[in-house]
Amino acid sequence: MSTEATCSYTTGICLSAAKLLKATGLNPVVLEARDRVGGRTFTVRNKETKWVDLGGAYIGPTQNRILRLAKEYGIKTYKVNEEENLVHYVHGKSYPFHTSFPPMWNPIVIMDFNNLFRTLDKMGSEIPQEAPWKAPHAEEWDKMSMQQLFDKICWTSTVQRFATLFVNVNVTSEPHEVSALWFLWYVKQCGGTMRIFSTSNGGQERKFEGGSSQISECMARELGERVKLESPVYSIDQTGDMVLVKTLDNEIYSAKYVIVATPPGLNLKIHFNPELPPLRNQLIHRVPMGSVIKCMVYYKENFWRKRGFCGTMVIEDEGAPIGLTLDDTKPDGSAPAIMGFILARKCRKLCVLPKEERLKRICEIYSKVLGTEEALHPVHYEEKNWCEEEYSGGCYTAYFPPGIMTQFGRVLRQPVGRLYFAGTETATEWSGYMEGAVQAGERAAREVLCTMGKLHQSQIWQPEPECLVGLSIPALPFPTTFWERNLPSVGGFLKFIGVSTVLSAATAVGLMAYKKGLISVNI
Amino acid sequence: MSTEATCSYTTGICLSAAKLLKATGLNPVVLEARDRVGGRTFTVRNKETKWVDLGGAYIGPTQNRILRLAKEYGIKTYKVNEEENLVHYVHGKSYPFHTSFPPMWNPIVIMDFNNLFRTLDKMGSEIPQEAPWKAPHAEEWDKMSMQQLFDKICWTSTVQRFATLFVNVNVTSEPHEVSALWFLWYVKQCGGTMRIFSTSNGGQERKFEGGSSQISECMARELGERVKLESPVYSIDQTGDMVLVKTLDNEIYSAKYVIVATPPGLNLKIHFNPELPPLRNQLIHRVPMGSVIKCMVYYKENFWRKRGFCGTMVIEDEGAPIGLTLDDTKPDGSAPAIMGFILARKCRKLCVLPKEERLKRICEIYSKVLGTEEALHPVHYEEKNWCEEEYSGGCYTAYFPPGIMTQFGRVLRQPVGRLYFAGTETATEWSGYMEGAVQAGERAAREVLCTMGKLHQSQIWQPEPECLVGLSIPALPFPTTFWERNLPSVGGFLKFIGVSTVLSAATAVGLMAYKKGLISVNI
Repeated sequence: MSTEATCSYTTGICLSAAKLLKATGLNPVVLEARDRVGGRTFTVRNKETKWVDLGGAYIGPTQNRILRLAKEYGIKTYKVNEEENLVHYVHGKSYPFHTSFPPMWNPIVIMDFNNLFRTLDKMGSEIPQEAPWKAPHAEEWDKMSMQQLFDKICWTSTVQRFATLFVNVNVTSEPHEVSALWFLWYVKQCGGTMRIFSTSNGGQERKFEGGSSQISECMARELGERVKLESPVYSIDQTGDMVLVKTLDNEIYSAKYVIVATPPGLNLKIHFNPELPPLRNQLIHRVPMGSVIKCMVYYKENFWRKRGFCGTMVIEDEGAPIGLTLDDTKPDGSAPAIMGFILARKCRKLCVLPKEERLKRICEIYSKVLGTEEALHPVHYEEKNWCEEEYSGGCYTAYFPPGIMTQFGRVLRQPVGRLYFAGTETATEWSGYMEGAVQAGERAAREVLCTMGKLHQSQIWQPEPECLVGLSIPALPFPTTFWERNLPSVGGFLKFIGVSTVLSAATAVGLMAYKKGLISVNI
Repeated sequence: MSTEATCSYTTGICLSAAKLLKATGLNPVVLEARDRVGGRTFTVRNKETKWVDLGGAYIGPTQNRILRLAKEYGIKTYKVNEEENLVHYVHGKSYPFHTSFPPMWNPIVIMDFNNLFRTLDKMGSEIPQEAPWKAPHAEEWDKMSMQQLFDKICWTSTVQRFATLFVNVNVTSEPHEVSALWFLWYVKQCGGTMRIFSTSNGGQERKFEGGSSQISECMARELGERVKLESPVYSIDQTGDMVLVKTLDNEIYSAKYVIVATPPGLNLKIHFNPELPPLRNQLIHRVPMGSVIKCMVYYKENFWRKRGFCGTMVIEDEGAPIGLTLDDTKPDGSAPAIMGFILARKCRKLCVLPKEERLKRICEIYSKVLGTEEALHPVHYEEKNWCEEEYSGGCYTAYFPPGIMTQFGRVLRQPVGRLYFAGTETATEWSGYMEGAVQAGERAAREVLCTMGKLHQSQIWQPEPECLVGLSIPALPFPTTFWERNLPSVGGFLKFIGVSTVLSAATAVGLMAYKKGLISVNI
């Protein structure tokens, strides 16, 4: 089969590349490894759940490209419930709250907490979104893990522990596994610590009515016969006039250009002729996918709202399987459910258990956090362990371990001959999210169009106007308070009250103790 | 084609698996991705070099399995020249020496240097070779990079810099990229810091006359038609009675068992049905191969020996492409040459240059280190950038970034259905070396034999008797001196001379200064 441009697997939202190419009058073919489109989005329909998103689901303000697609297809969004109290579970106790981050009470901890997130955003502001390897401190920050950065910034173990959860929740990996440069970039290109972590006005504000896979399904319907399911690509040959692409079902596709829209690490599923250049050949071995099991527990009744809880639980407890939950009840109040993530280290530990055992442990922690044994009686359970997916490798997204971004980052979306690279990992806004996948797919499509002479180079990267759909999702700024801006760090505070004073006092005490014979000097 | 047991690509020394299976009366088939056997060993023959090892080449005492194979095939070894002085180039100056490690002169640096390597070996002694994830401090050490460990141990920048070179040379990666637990294990399973780094009595003592690929070539000859070249495997299907293995040349092989003998990360070239279990599916995205270009510069004359240098150069200079050299002149004195490694960060930086430019820069540093412009006039150059090899992914071996060994290490050689795993990365003695590949191949073969009921489980792991070939290679112990054992660390030394004394003095000085008005207290 001969085509103008082939968009290779795993497609998901990167169907947007083929959609754009088709709209320009070209004839793209999409080769999808799975028996379904959607990639890391995965909407399951059944009678117990009606529909449930076992993969990527959340969208929010500033994610204008995915919202534009939804609008085009008439897919509505609804707000994730955050009416009642959120709850922070720590040291075995539940603390209701109603802000983006759980509030702290100890004054030292408040200073430390405030300083941590202020510092992360400040460091992020130095990092160019489109080229993090060019940041002024790129080398220094890339040699460090986030764990090392936390060790430098945080004075209190309370804030250290919360910082670990912040990494777990946002990138499904551990602070010691990820490069500080990469993680700071990641948070920055989502709009900062508040935008990435918030439900209201943040990345988790909404979901799609009917499920997120509809976006891919609508695009696939539009592309019709051009989308070939169950067609994993195992070989790409660029040595001839046309690029030859082979799939496991023994088809050979011939194209002028190929867009590879898999996570970078899954390029490895393909045998390339000629071989990839050295840096790309090594990059794709160095950017693993995070580890997560998405768990949906269904109940007969929405008992948590009755108890004044919205369903959001921020859980700090090494023994608890789940780190973060959100209400997953349908907008009409039907199919009451709680969505919870088993993250990073916990995912690797608990993935070997039987499904029933995981459900049992999840219900137990929900019961503790919400303070009711109603949580112990689910009526249905759905879960998806993304670590077992050969054609995803994990979820939500790829992470960069220390040292990789500065050494290999610049080849992430560098074309190789007639191959172009999409996939949310290659995006510069909301990379790792559905929004990033749209940006990446459309950018890669425009790179092909540019090479074909149908577009000027300056048109490849296009900003997206704000998209207000349905109930309207304006991106509100996150104003900082005077105290958030000016509260000292714990270190600054100690300086302020005068370290020298403390030391003088200590010396005085020491001398007194020496005189009284409490200290002796041994040589 | 139906076979008893298939040994899948990339074979290299893991042909030892097929060799053992055949010797037991089975009918193995070997599927090799490349047009040659040998894998990460690669002997090139031409008139300028006679023969040259552009891949794995060095062998030494305690590597008894590979020596046993060499003996069987009548392949002789010869000593890498270490007669004359070695030379350590640092701060732009050359210092001749004649020990395993370059000597240091500053007493503080001596203490620091001695303490570093003593500590690495001591920590290594706590790590079980066959299960590093079970070490008493496994979690703590795995969360740390080697850079972090060096920051803890080393007091002087001189030793810090040498420590970086030590990591670069041994595992072709950077200290901040690798887990401390993994690196400590790696050094330990090679016999410790002295064994791994030494030429005489160490891992680089000898080479094979005629080149190291001969081992694989002899095994391939013995296996005859069973070895299929240019047969990259892209699919393994275990869903039926027999395991079906497909290759790029459209052959389908059917076997009762399959041994996958690629580096772990290259399992990704294969589409598995059923999918791999979650932990293995993620492990293989997390263990990248190191980065190295092996560079052989040929000269008309062996001018370095005439100048009293054996050809070993330990080069510390950020601007120098090469980190370590060894004499590569043939044992009969012909084809005078210096072998040098471009390592880790330097490999990624310099791989984009033209070959001639790399040669020029290499000759320039050799000229500086050896103090003669004779080094500027090579007569021939061979190099191999292993980062460009699709079917190796890099060299010498896979490394574990922080956090991976404890979370995923235990599935490294855990069989998956009828799949067994070989490859030097799965070895427990000299993993990363040819020796490890033999151990792994034979162990995997015996796992298959055990499953077939031809062997008891207790026979799978077999120790290897000492193999004394040709000139005989006894493994000599590395005796430590009284001072090596008992010299304090810099920290210990400071304690010894009495930190308290220092502080008392400082307090006295401070009080005097305060009285004289040199210090004021601001609140």
